[in-house]
Amino acid sequence: MSETIDPARPADPAPLPDAAVPEAKGTAPKRKRVVIVGAGFGGISAARVLEKSDLEVIVVDRTNHHLFQPLLYQVATAMLAPTDIAQPIRSVLDCTHHANLSVLLDSVEAVDKTSKAVVLGSGMRLAYDYLVLAPGSRYNYFGNDAEWAPHAPGLKTMDDAIMLRRRILMAFERAELSRDPEERRRLLTFVVIGGGPTGVEMAGAMAELAKATLARDFRHIDPKSTRIVLVEAVDELLGQFTDRQSAYTKETLEKMGVEVMLNAPVKGVESHRVMAGETAIEAETIIWCAGVSASPLVGQIGAETAKGGQVKVSRDFSVPGSPEIFVIGDAAAYEEDGRPLPALAPVAKQQGKHVGRLIAAREGQGRDPGQFHYRDWGTMATIGRAAAVGKFGKVTVKGFPAWLLWGGVHVAYLVGFRNRIMVIVNWLWAWLTYAKGARLITGADREAPERLPTKG
Amino acid sequence: MSETIDPARPADPAPLPDAAVPEAKGTAPKRKRVVIVGAGFGGISAARVLEKSDLEVIVVDRTNHHLFQPLLYQVATAMLAPTDIAQPIRSVLDCTHHANLSVLLDSVEAVDKTSKAVVLGSGMRLAYDYLVLAPGSRYNYFGNDAEWAPHAPGLKTMDDAIMLRRRILMAFERAELSRDPEERRRLLTFVVIGGGPTGVEMAGAMAELAKATLARDFRHIDPKSTRIVLVEAVDELLGQFTDRQSAYTKETLEKMGVEVMLNAPVKGVESHRVMAGETAIEAETIIWCAGVSASPLVGQIGAETAKGGQVKVSRDFSVPGSPEIFVIGDAAAYEEDGRPLPALAPVAKQQGKHVGRLIAAREGQGRDPGQFHYRDWGTMATIGRAAAVGKFGKVTVKGFPAWLLWGGVHVAYLVGFRNRIMVIVNWLWAWLTYAKGARLITGADREAPERLPTKG
Repeated sequence: MSETIDPARPADPAPLPDAAVPEAKGTAPKRKRVVIVGAGFGGISAARVLEKSDLEVIVVDRTNHHLFQPLLYQVATAMLAPTDIAQPIRSVLDCTHHANLSVLLDSVEAVDKTSKAVVLGSGMRLAYDYLVLAPGSRYNYFGNDAEWAPHAPGLKTMDDAIMLRRRILMAFERAELSRDPEERRRLLTFVVIGGGPTGVEMAGAMAELAKATLARDFRHIDPKSTRIVLVEAVDELLGQFTDRQSAYTKETLEKMGVEVMLNAPVKGVESHRVMAGETAIEAETIIWCAGVSASPLVGQIGAETAKGGQVKVSRDFSVPGSPEIFVIGDAAAYEEDGRPLPALAPVAKQQGKHVGRLIAAREGQGRDPGQFHYRDWGTMATIGRAAAVGKFGKVTVKGFPAWLLWGGVHVAYLVGFRNRIMVIVNWLWAWLTYAKGARLITGADREAPERLPTKG
Repeated sequence: MSETIDPARPADPAPLPDAAVPEAKGTAPKRKRVVIVGAGFGGISAARVLEKSDLEVIVVDRTNHHLFQPLLYQVATAMLAPTDIAQPIRSVLDCTHHANLSVLLDSVEAVDKTSKAVVLGSGMRLAYDYLVLAPGSRYNYFGNDAEWAPHAPGLKTMDDAIMLRRRILMAFERAELSRDPEERRRLLTFVVIGGGPTGVEMAGAMAELAKATLARDFRHIDPKSTRIVLVEAVDELLGQFTDRQSAYTKETLEKMGVEVMLNAPVKGVESHRVMAGETAIEAETIIWCAGVSASPLVGQIGAETAKGGQVKVSRDFSVPGSPEIFVIGDAAAYEEDGRPLPALAPVAKQQGKHVGRLIAAREGQGRDPGQFHYRDWGTMATIGRAAAVGKFGKVTVKGFPAWLLWGGVHVAYLVGFRNRIMVIVNWLWAWLTYAKGARLITGADREAPERLPTKG
């Protein structure tokens, strides 16, 4: 049976060992509690505002770290180490100085709007006065999740990235051991599905890994002959950029040795095989960077949702009919000027900050932030070594300056001084030597056999 | 069926894509082949000598990386990132410039002395003219491997370290969620078995993690109350150091909050329970840093072995009766001045270099290195922040100077400039802030349930 716990005032008789929670002493009046689900860009921003208030803040996440998702593809391609882009939530938030803040490593299974509580994976119920849902998104296989997902993993969590890194590096190792030319070809074919920023970045990074880093490391295969195919359903890459930028992106990727297939909607994914338009491609490794949908958690709260499962929130990000529940980030459908805001880190950050201020203001702890307006600083995507595109309103940049800007912005956005140093050292190192610092295979893959079948 | 492969001259008709293997063209006479099993300190040293010769060199390892084992405990305790102390074997060796060198990621299942071939995990047979076995050691549970090992993992591979890091960090997270005081106490008890350098270093690092890094990050537990018990069978820690140093080590650990139990041979290990002497300790996490034995691979070659399974090698490290097979490093029993050389990195390195030279000399590629003599530069062990001991012949050091020296030596021994930078940044960072840069929980633990049983 589940039961309601109240972390600040535990029901069990064990003495709380620290004095960090003043209410535990039973003197102060009950403070209102804000539960924040998800420690991504949105959740962290909200918590950073609220940790300075007098409200009780509880952040729940199923991992122990805040992840800098925009660089996750660099972990998958062995450029960065996992720890370079992950930071413990307890460190990102200032647990040391804010006794009103606590962090729980747990999943959220359900939201009980009637009794105002969330049900955690451990079976506990956590009561809330305000609830901020920032659970993010996950990949969406156009209704074929069960069939396609096992063969074409996406890239959302650190475990995804480490698994993909292992699969990519193992494909080369297995090809080196293989004596069957057909198997070798299949092992050295990588298909990236989706021509948005993630797909473009992934394909470019794969090309660099295969054609520069690993170029001379093997004896029986030539990594330079690796086939990298980027598959896109419509007629251009990076649809959100200008036509010229899209064309430049395609051209740059092709120069790097990536095959770009446009107008090739994916019609099927099986084990080691993709149907891209009418073309079948045999590939050991298939990477899904296409559609996303909101975390299924928000589907439970009984609100109207957009096509991708995002909750159609009110103008203040609350759920219609539940003014104490807010949905922000990738899981929210919020329109400005008639267009939904994109699922990007800056959108989630700004929304989190706004909702944090709003809640504080409602409890008399600060000024009302007024109506939310997204400050669009622009969008960028990197293609490869010294190549990127950026669009800032009507200003567009591409090539080396865009790439430098891209690097600077990403380092600046990273959480933590140490992580910034690490990323800069890794990037400089890779720039100078073409080496990748994180070519580490760890863990065993339960899904894919890593051993070759014995032949002959 | 297994079959003999000859990587330089594949039997299959697929064209070899590169020109890196001249013999593949079928013109040059067959070169002699050296197979090196294991890319630890010994195997890498041997390969580094031989890659410069004209012999064909094939290195086989079951992982893709050379691991700097002396700092593995710092990965387990979230100080360093896995990639900081692991380097791809293909990069450590200079595959780019030495076409006679190849690396295979595979396990070695058996040695067939009669036909001079090793049998790989993939089923292939690899013929050799010379065989260098450097497979290292593994933990030995005094004959109780099957019963004890699952409950008290050791620390030999990167996967071990990442698993242990997850278990250690999860213990605090689970304690924070737990409402049962007894369960909380068990979760916050860590037992380290073995008072040698690894056990001392592990216990010291655990104390720093719990009592400094995590000190104020939680609300319902006080990490400072974490119980860390170091269990040793005999009457002192670090038996290979002087009595004064052993006493200093014990005292320093105790000041750091570690309970040191001497004269407490382990009599049993069960799930979450250790019998240390006559005392039973309930602990969620038990870490084995006690006896080691040679890799079971060398047990197959039919040579006489020492108590720990190490092959009693001849004065040139060859296996008696098989002058073309050499065993080096932790898997070899080699005596000098009537005492076996210890299982240390410098021993393995010097032996690898020696055997590499010996093989080259036998093939007329360099001078005979003469008789091997171990150059003992001394031994060091770190205890914690600014505390270490070192013994260099009759000279002993302890405290802060020893700790600085320890750090310098370890950074110097690390392979790769980038890794040195990373380790220095991480150490400086931890020194300044007490933070640990690698507090990342990844992967799911198939052995231990990470979810709390629902109570109440």
